[in-house]
Amino acid sequence: MRLNIDVYMDYQTAPSDPVLLAVTAAQTEGQTVLQSDLEVEGATLRWIDGAGQRGRMVWAFVPGERLQLRYKALVEVTRATVPLDRLAPTRFPDLPGGVIPYLRPSRFCPSDLFVSFVAKQFGHLDGGAKVAAMRDWVAGALTYVPGSSTGTTTAIDTFVTREGVCRDYAHVMCSLARAANIPARYVSGYGPQVNPPDFHALAEVWLDGAWHLVDPTGTSTPSDLAVIGSGRDAADVSFMETENFAQAIYQRIEVSQV
Amino acid sequence: MRLNIDVYMDYQTAPSDPVLLAVTAAQTEGQTVLQSDLEVEGATLRWIDGAGQRGRMVWAFVPGERLQLRYKALVEVTRATVPLDRLAPTRFPDLPGGVIPYLRPSRFCPSDLFVSFVAKQFGHLDGGAKVAAMRDWVAGALTYVPGSSTGTTTAIDTFVTREGVCRDYAHVMCSLARAANIPARYVSGYGPQVNPPDFHALAEVWLDGAWHLVDPTGTSTPSDLAVIGSGRDAADVSFMETENFAQAIYQRIEVSQV
Amino acid sequence: MRLNIDVYMDYQTAPSDPVLLAVTAAQTEGQTVLQSDLEVEGATLRWIDGAGQRGRMVWAFVPGERLQLRYKALVEVTRATVPLDRLAPTRFPDLPGGVIPYLRPSRFCPSDLFVSFVAKQFGHLDGGAKVAAMRDWVAGALTYVPGSSTGTTTAIDTFVTREGVCRDYAHVMCSLARAANIPARYVSGYGPQVNPPDFHALAEVWLDGAWHLVDPTGTSTPSDLAVIGSGRDAADVSFMETENFAQAIYQRIEVSQV
Amino acid sequence: MRLNIDVYMDYQTAPSDPVLLAVTAAQTEGQTVLQSDLEVEGATLRWIDGAGQRGRMVWAFVPGERLQLRYKALVEVTRATVPLDRLAPTRFPDLPGGVIPYLRPSRFCPSDLFVSFVAKQFGHLDGGAKVAAMRDWVAGALTYVPGSSTGTTTAIDTFVTREGVCRDYAHVMCSLARAANIPARYVSGYGPQVNPPDFHALAEVWLDGAWHLVDPTGTSTPSDLAVIGSGRDAADVSFMETENFAQAIYQRIEVSQV
Repeated sequence: MRLNIDVYMDYQTAPSDPVLLAVTAAQTEGQTVLQSDLEVEGATLRWIDGAGQRGRMVWAFVPGERLQLRYKALVEVTRATVPLDRLAPTRFPDLPGGVIPYLRPSRFCPSDLFVSFVAKQFGHLDGGAKVAAMRDWVAGALTYVPGSSTGTTTAIDTFVTREGVCRDYAHVMCSLARAANIPARYVSGYGPQVNPPDFHALAEVWLDGAWHLVDPTGTSTPSDLAVIGSGRDAADVSFMETENFAQAIYQRIEVSQV
Repeated sequence: MRLNIDVYMDYQTAPSDPVLLAVTAAQTEGQTVLQSDLEVEGATLRWIDGAGQRGRMVWAFVPGERLQLRYKALVEVTRATVPLDRLAPTRFPDLPGGVIPYLRPSRFCPSDLFVSFVAKQFGHLDGGAKVAAMRDWVAGALTYVPGSSTGTTTAIDTFVTREGVCRDYAHVMCSLARAANIPARYVSGYGPQVNPPDFHALAEVWLDGAWHLVDPTGTSTPSDLAVIGSGRDAADVSFMETENFAQAIYQRIEVSQV
Repeated sequence: MRLNIDVYMDYQTAPSDPVLLAVTAAQTEGQTVLQSDLEVEGATLRWIDGAGQRGRMVWAFVPGERLQLRYKALVEVTRATVPLDRLAPTRFPDLPGGVIPYLRPSRFCPSDLFVSFVAKQFGHLDGGAKVAAMRDWVAGALTYVPGSSTGTTTAIDTFVTREGVCRDYAHVMCSLARAANIPARYVSGYGPQVNPPDFHALAEVWLDGAWHLVDPTGTSTPSDLAVIGSGRDAADVSFMETENFAQAIYQRIEVSQV
Repeated sequence: MRLNIDVYMDYQTAPSDPVLLAVTAAQTEGQTVLQSDLEVEGATLRWIDGAGQRGRMVWAFVPGERLQLRYKALVEVTRATVPLDRLAPTRFPDLPGGVIPYLRPSRFCPSDLFVSFVAKQFGHLDGGAKVAAMRDWVAGALTYVPGSSTGTTTAIDTFVTREGVCRDYAHVMCSLARAANIPARYVSGYGPQVNPPDFHALAEVWLDGAWHLVDPTGTSTPSDLAVIGSGRDAADVSFMETENFAQAIYQRIEVSQV
């Protein structure tokens, strides 16, 4: 599937405050970036790798107090949507070293606190069937309520209030999986069915020797998601980071299948 | 300085449960491992890298329910103890990509919640002088109370109760530094002055283009610490991880200067 | 039903530290205290009322560092076990003034955080049927695990870990009821079926113009419980409070039907 | 001092949803209500006592979806502003039964978690001098930032972020006092120096056999405060409670010395 991505962002920033951006579709497994054009008005750009996530991030050095960004891309998504249920678990000692950190609790996914709940609720299942049951549980237990969470909301908060947005669904999903010793990452990306159109967030679990996308909100599939990046939780894949502040004036995201 | 390390651990585990260990001194900057001998009775060992920390970890496949480990090492520590006050800050966009993740909040270091406290308390300082003031503040504000924390204690809990052990001192230190946009890691290691002798934990901050050890408990210096590994917080550098459980029967750690 | 209560407590205290006790069965609706004999070796006693709970509390002024207490009582419980399902709700403005505080969140029952979960899970029910569904939910969702909680564990913690003791079951029960605008108190008491024999805790809800006991652990009924006291949560009905500390040396509680 | 109070509130409510109000100055020690006139347009009123606080609350039965309230009062405040430092502590067993609940932790004042901080920071002081030191500490440590807290912010949150409004200052003050075994209540009231004019919140501690007002924000004194009510924390003295919702359209509070 080919996705056309068109992003426009207009932000107020502190004067000459460098901005670190994670908005571009990643050149990564299951997707090919055919065209990619990022322009930040008046800014010098510097690309970096390895900042805690798999995609690339970019520094934008804007001279004034205004970040006006245009990102246009064409991405071929070749990833198949594999039924989770058929996927076998990977035994703990067979996990690659680089995957092990995704077993651990993180700021917004305190998975260590969910161990007994997960054992009780999902203990009879294994591998992909267990992950599918978790995804269905999250989808049923939570209600999507715009504005119900903030930047400090954790999976514990969401588990109690049972309300959240895609970020919160992904945090609960990652927490449950990790609590069952299944590695899980938080993924940001673009999906054509996200409504209203916005940056999307979902989870990715390690099963049968590979990462597999899981979206408990049901608004994306592995076949129609253009991944931006992934990390331990939302803290790792913020689309914009500054030392001081950034305040949205206007933002528009369009993702369409072509 | 040369350190002689002698560790003996005797643990009860689940039958045939693989154990992931992070107990060996790392071959890393500022220290040279001259001799290193790890033996786990009856076990096959498999070394891995990159599991979220800089040192190596090792899988021990113990056939039964008993892990009996002996680790002996001789480590030359060549690291200088640089006065923190002289170290300049590294500007945000000059941070290497691999250092950026250590600016972010983690499970036990929710640094995002400390931003206003840090601005008020340490806002007039910069770089190494700021870190030194934070270290002194932690040393003065906290009381070392064995048994006062558990495996789920966060820097928030410690900040409120003002009691903890080395793990908690390190978590508060990392939280304060990150809240001031100074990258900080959690470090585990061996030190000859740790009393009673045990695994030690401290922090490491990025200043002037390099990592610098900071120990708010005052029981180690950069010149006498043999680093095992480092990560975002205690979750990354657990000396022992299993899928099920491990219960200490006996443990003895000896570290001496030779 | 007549209950014979026999308590022996032996505690280490700070020297001459007055101890506030809430261990005696209350002279209250649904039960008549036929005999009651409290002796604290070497101590002067002073009874007080109104310390945040309906029963009486007593100061014991022990001269040394040792509290040795013997409490023997015979209590006639005349309370009927009414099926909850038949009880009508009391409309908000028909609640007596003294009942209104039990709608509010408390230290261990942060009911304000459970409002959306309760609306989703129990919103289709009302009055006693709603409370019965909550009790059954708590009974099914939690596992009774001795030692799984501490004196600072809240209903949020228990809701996440799904493990606790009677104190924690009662806190979750009170939180859910209050979140649905049903007044709920935390009750301490003696029950003959509690096993191992110990102080017991449960909840009490206001329905149809009266308080009704609800025990989500299933180990007591309104007909066989001798109430000690009730309050907003465990903080109000501690069986022992001191300014400094009290450490159990030995404690034995026997409750039998006669 | 005589205070003239003039309040106008215009709220959107759910249709025919009864509203519980705590807005009228209390007839209580240290103040005399000379005139008091509460009108809620189109509503029947019913006064109640004992709803967890010392003042009176009132039910307003508004027929539609709009609460338009006018409260005018003239209050003579005869309370003296006693220097705290001279006040002696009341020994634990000399506390009246009704005061003991204010030693306990509550929803927004988890005082049990502050015990070691308080012992370390204020342990060398006693009685009124200790309370004065706590008040000065709160005043210095916190920054008044409108909008920095929400209805679920606790004293722990405020202690960490060091930002809040009068509600949060009062919660931290109560938490510190209770952690030192000094009874403390949360008080709502009207003060002429509150700027911008609004409902005010402060603390009240039990010293030398009586309650004494303490305002860590410094915007009121015992001599110029008209108390509305007091309770364990903000949950007890909400100026407006409904079963469903209430949304401010317009609110104006004027308090002047006459």
